[in-house]
Amino acid sequence: MTEGRTRRAQNFEVRPIGVIRSKLKARSKAPKQGSEGAPNAWLEVYRFAAQALDGLAVGDEIIVLTWFHQADRETLKVHPRSDPKRRLSGVFATRSPDRPNPIGLHPVTVQKIGKNRLRIGPMEAIDGTPVIDIKPVLCEIQKH
Amino acid sequence: MTEGRTRRAQNFEVRPIGVIRSKLKARSKAPKQGSEGAPNAWLEVYRFAAQALDGLAVGDEIIVLTWFHQADRETLKVHPRSDPKRRLSGVFATRSPDRPNPIGLHPVTVQKIGKNRLRIGPMEAIDGTPVIDIKPVLCEIQKH
Repeated sequence: MTEGRTRRAQNFEVRPIGVIRSKLKARSKAPKQGSEGAPNAWLEVYRFAAQALDGLAVGDEIIVLTWFHQADRETLKVHPRSDPKRRLSGVFATRSPDRPNPIGLHPVTVQKIGKNRLRIGPMEAIDGTPVIDIKPVLCEIQKH
Repeated sequence: MTEGRTRRAQNFEVRPIGVIRSKLKARSKAPKQGSEGAPNAWLEVYRFAAQALDGLAVGDEIIVLTWFHQADRETLKVHPRSDPKRRLSGVFATRSPDRPNPIGLHPVTVQKIGKNRLRIGPMEAIDGTPVIDIKPVLCEIQKH
């Protein structure tokens, strides 16, 4: 067990499959979760990956995986929801975008399907956020 | 819009934060989903990331993000659940581990907490699978 922790693990390269196009332009103005008043957005899929969209339909609930390109990857502890009154917590117990691998999970609904793009929402990620995967939902979206 | 699709997007480096230790040793023997009879497993967290676990507790429902290191990243279409009778579908409409960025999402429960490791389950990922993030659930786990 100790061996597994001390051996240097191999790194992997993530290649974005698309990008978010949104009227949200600044991280400071974005809601923390999609359910907190986020707008719809376009998910533009790069040409190399476009055929992987086949089978998606309007009304589908999907999970969009993004890479928070503006995150601080050295952060291991945060005050949840940036509230200094809340106790410092490990980032794995929070949804902070600042974390070693700044991957965002966004449950959204497919609103429209265009050529190599999906209209989705609600989406709190800002314009230009790289998209790294799209998956069918694995669970019901929490309503609260 | 065309510009966004044709411009070469920046790639990113994923650094594993831990590894799965499981009695499941071969991908061919692993269930396709955790809910299909998968065992519990240990999630060993590397020392550099261990303090990011603070705040997690036994009984927590979490989502473990893995990197399917044996996946084929060139695959864009598959028969869902490897069933040749099912129509070929884009991988973004499926849970195939073969996809451009082979990230797995695993909803699990924390069973035990050890020094720099979590006992979790049910977990269908095989022994040695790199773990790249841990998050609180964003939704109720689907029961079917």
